[in-house]
Amino acid sequence: MTDSPANGWTATLHLSKPSLADNRADADRLKNALMEAFVAESIDIDIALLRRLPTLLRQWDYAVRCFCFNDYGRWRLLGIKAPDDSVPFAGIAVDLGTTRVVLRLINLDTGEKMTERAFDNPQIEIGPDILARIHFGGTENGLQRLNRLIVEGLQTNIEQACLDAGISKEDIYLVAVSGNTSMAHLFMNLPPAGIIREPYIPVVNRPGLMTANALGLELHPNAGVFVLPNAGSYFGGDLISGILYSGLHENGEIAMLVDVGTNAEVVLGNRDWLVACAGAAGPALEGGVSPVGMTAGPGVIDQVKIDPESGRFDIHTISDQAPKGICGSGMIDLVAQLFLSGLLDVRGRLVPEAAPERIYETDDGRRLLIVGADASATGEALTIGQADLDSLIRSKAAMYTILETITRYVGVEFADISTFYVAGTFGSFIRPRSAISIGMIPDLPENTYQSLGNSSLGGAARLLQSRSAVSSIDRIYQNITYLELNVNQEFMNRFSAAKFLPHTEASHFPSVKRRVN
Amino acid sequence: MTDSPANGWTATLHLSKPSLADNRADADRLKNALMEAFVAESIDIDIALLRRLPTLLRQWDYAVRCFCFNDYGRWRLLGIKAPDDSVPFAGIAVDLGTTRVVLRLINLDTGEKMTERAFDNPQIEIGPDILARIHFGGTENGLQRLNRLIVEGLQTNIEQACLDAGISKEDIYLVAVSGNTSMAHLFMNLPPAGIIREPYIPVVNRPGLMTANALGLELHPNAGVFVLPNAGSYFGGDLISGILYSGLHENGEIAMLVDVGTNAEVVLGNRDWLVACAGAAGPALEGGVSPVGMTAGPGVIDQVKIDPESGRFDIHTISDQAPKGICGSGMIDLVAQLFLSGLLDVRGRLVPEAAPERIYETDDGRRLLIVGADASATGEALTIGQADLDSLIRSKAAMYTILETITRYVGVEFADISTFYVAGTFGSFIRPRSAISIGMIPDLPENTYQSLGNSSLGGAARLLQSRSAVSSIDRIYQNITYLELNVNQEFMNRFSAAKFLPHTEASHFPSVKRRVN
Repeated sequence: MTDSPANGWTATLHLSKPSLADNRADADRLKNALMEAFVAESIDIDIALLRRLPTLLRQWDYAVRCFCFNDYGRWRLLGIKAPDDSVPFAGIAVDLGTTRVVLRLINLDTGEKMTERAFDNPQIEIGPDILARIHFGGTENGLQRLNRLIVEGLQTNIEQACLDAGISKEDIYLVAVSGNTSMAHLFMNLPPAGIIREPYIPVVNRPGLMTANALGLELHPNAGVFVLPNAGSYFGGDLISGILYSGLHENGEIAMLVDVGTNAEVVLGNRDWLVACAGAAGPALEGGVSPVGMTAGPGVIDQVKIDPESGRFDIHTISDQAPKGICGSGMIDLVAQLFLSGLLDVRGRLVPEAAPERIYETDDGRRLLIVGADASATGEALTIGQADLDSLIRSKAAMYTILETITRYVGVEFADISTFYVAGTFGSFIRPRSAISIGMIPDLPENTYQSLGNSSLGGAARLLQSRSAVSSIDRIYQNITYLELNVNQEFMNRFSAAKFLPHTEASHFPSVKRRVN
Repeated sequence: MTDSPANGWTATLHLSKPSLADNRADADRLKNALMEAFVAESIDIDIALLRRLPTLLRQWDYAVRCFCFNDYGRWRLLGIKAPDDSVPFAGIAVDLGTTRVVLRLINLDTGEKMTERAFDNPQIEIGPDILARIHFGGTENGLQRLNRLIVEGLQTNIEQACLDAGISKEDIYLVAVSGNTSMAHLFMNLPPAGIIREPYIPVVNRPGLMTANALGLELHPNAGVFVLPNAGSYFGGDLISGILYSGLHENGEIAMLVDVGTNAEVVLGNRDWLVACAGAAGPALEGGVSPVGMTAGPGVIDQVKIDPESGRFDIHTISDQAPKGICGSGMIDLVAQLFLSGLLDVRGRLVPEAAPERIYETDDGRRLLIVGADASATGEALTIGQADLDSLIRSKAAMYTILETITRYVGVEFADISTFYVAGTFGSFIRPRSAISIGMIPDLPENTYQSLGNSSLGGAARLLQSRSAVSSIDRIYQNITYLELNVNQEFMNRFSAAKFLPHTEASHFPSVKRRVN
């Protein structure tokens, strides 16, 4: 007899009791019931757990709550509890970002979120970007130090999350980690040098379930850690996690997933096929290019409107605080509004005569006043130069060219795309209308665009909640074709055409109506 | 490209080198080659080994010698070496006897024996027999103490074996352990109490591969330990190992395997079916019943002939030393010769008139002088009493009854048995002719009987030598039917009939010609 959630990783079993007619070994008795409950061909039980099994089964009168995990077809029993134990089996989903790490504590019995925490990746003290860290990883004890930083950061924050949720670290039985290939290597203490050196070789793509002990984490003594697979050096577990979270791999209709960061990572496909590529989209989209560019946070401009009649700038900041900078989505809004209201021409150049009070010449070229010194949080005017705008336009052109290239490679039209998922913080803030206006993304109906939020974390959490997620992940991993972007003449031609606003071929963007002064 | 022994666990691989056209991860490059070399669907690589992989592969120019093991269908890479490393991968086969432990060091590259050692089971200090140990295991820290004794005994002796063979303990990558269910439990530190208490429940039947670390052995950090499966409380891994070693499970013809100790364990079958049973055969067969009974060793009588004309006793001792006692096979010889020469009647009673100089009355009944005080090693006469003879005859009767019961259960005749394997030390010394003469074993042609020697050790060694052994073991484990011996009226009738020499039905033993005075 079994009480078991439809698709979770835990089940309460009521075993038949031993008798002369049924004198199976304790392990077999439990295993057979688990195989039935989880529809598994076999289930492995660790020796440490076996040692406690006979006493506990008898103490609990052969009723037992179990937590199992399916490691790519190999089922393992990771934890047992008394059926009336009030503390749940708990798990941690981790989005292992290069800059920021987010972890979510999940009740494995119900799938519910217990709490969530985020912290800066402590490896930033070694280097802000992954390249610097990989180089440091090649120095004496460098890898060990990088590894210890992230493992200790995780340990501390997991313990704090447990404290917040009123459980202990020994209640954590599974950690699911989603990160890019390099971060996953540094976390597993695997030499990452091959990833960035031609021919770009990771140590491992599909590590599967490891013990928390082997990775230096102190949780339940039997706890496992599942690192999501990467499909090569440039297609990380975070992306596979994102695909899982989006559900793109399950739909009959074609969808696209875009994760925008320093690299734009793009997946196109449906339940039958998946093609992925990545390309440098430029830091402009992360808000990291101009002196006023910054990542989203209180006081950062995330929305801009320019009144077409008065030319007045209507500026919105996060948390409605005085403006101190502008984030990527704010920049896209700004450029879209500048273009639509005639302050930028089709080549992306500032037009002084359109707003002489805001656009002025300097030795370094034209600049635009966004917020005057009187209204800003810093006491200084917030401005951006032509060069910053050029940079953003190159980024948007690169993004559009990547999207165009992957769709053409597969032989589909933008119009064939039923859903366009935008992942990451960027995706949470971007307004599709603005991105379309500048020709960064295709001119599709706005409801085609869907923001996923932190899909890397979402996918890792899904893994803890659903027993079908492992086979989905493996299917995604097996199905995905990575398209190496050839920066050839054809690509460059498309890129040049995409550097116009919205595009040299205005017919590609029929919905973009520019006010022409 | 692969150099690999036909059926061993090691292979030298020459991997293709990474290029932009072939940028598989290091793990996948190795895994794919291993899957081909070992005809495996997948091969797991431990994280500790992964961490060393990138550096070593490049250092060795992508040529690598690998040791893999198949854990019931789950293949694992357990070791890697430079292809020109002069030290072999080594393994240890263990016969984990209740009284004596034998270990054999094996070169896993060639399958050859490097050295062998035996030592008394250190748990004897807790109790000579398994029952006493299991009871002690139920006391405070009792199990831990028993476990530590055997694990430390193994560690010390493995280290000594390595020293003898000129290798180090870190060169040991796999240990295969064959023992009865209780000894296996004590070795794995699993509570054994259920094994001896109705309804006779072991903790585990088929533990599979564990890490040496988890079992407290310090060998290569990645080393594995494979404990042979037991098929219930009374059918141990030592028997399954013995079946493997005999090859009984692979033959078309029906064969029987008998392991004689305090219990007689019997297997009957062929490649299609296997039936096993065990029953108390009595300690008489182990030479443990009379004051002069002892296990085989220098100075122990292992062979007796009585000249039919002169009545002279022709006595042979192991190593030709002065006699100090008599072992089980010596006793069988003695009883056979006494019977054939008329010194015992068909009921097994000493006949004083047949040898008045050797048979005399005492307060405790008749006694037989085997060796006079002048010729013995102890300076005292070696004698046995009627009671000792009765005990041996009960044992032989029990043995024959068990053999009769299992064959009748299956519906075969003794004459259908093509080979009759006799395992254990007892099997190495016993002369089938004598055992037939007293009606202990069926009256089959002598060449039907084959001594296996230490088949428990032999099977464990086979596992280290041959990659097909794991699936054979699993097939044996899955196929075996354990026959519970019902000591009912029918059994008792057979037993009574078997207490005659050779049997009440003399027609069952046509070859036994007794000299009638």
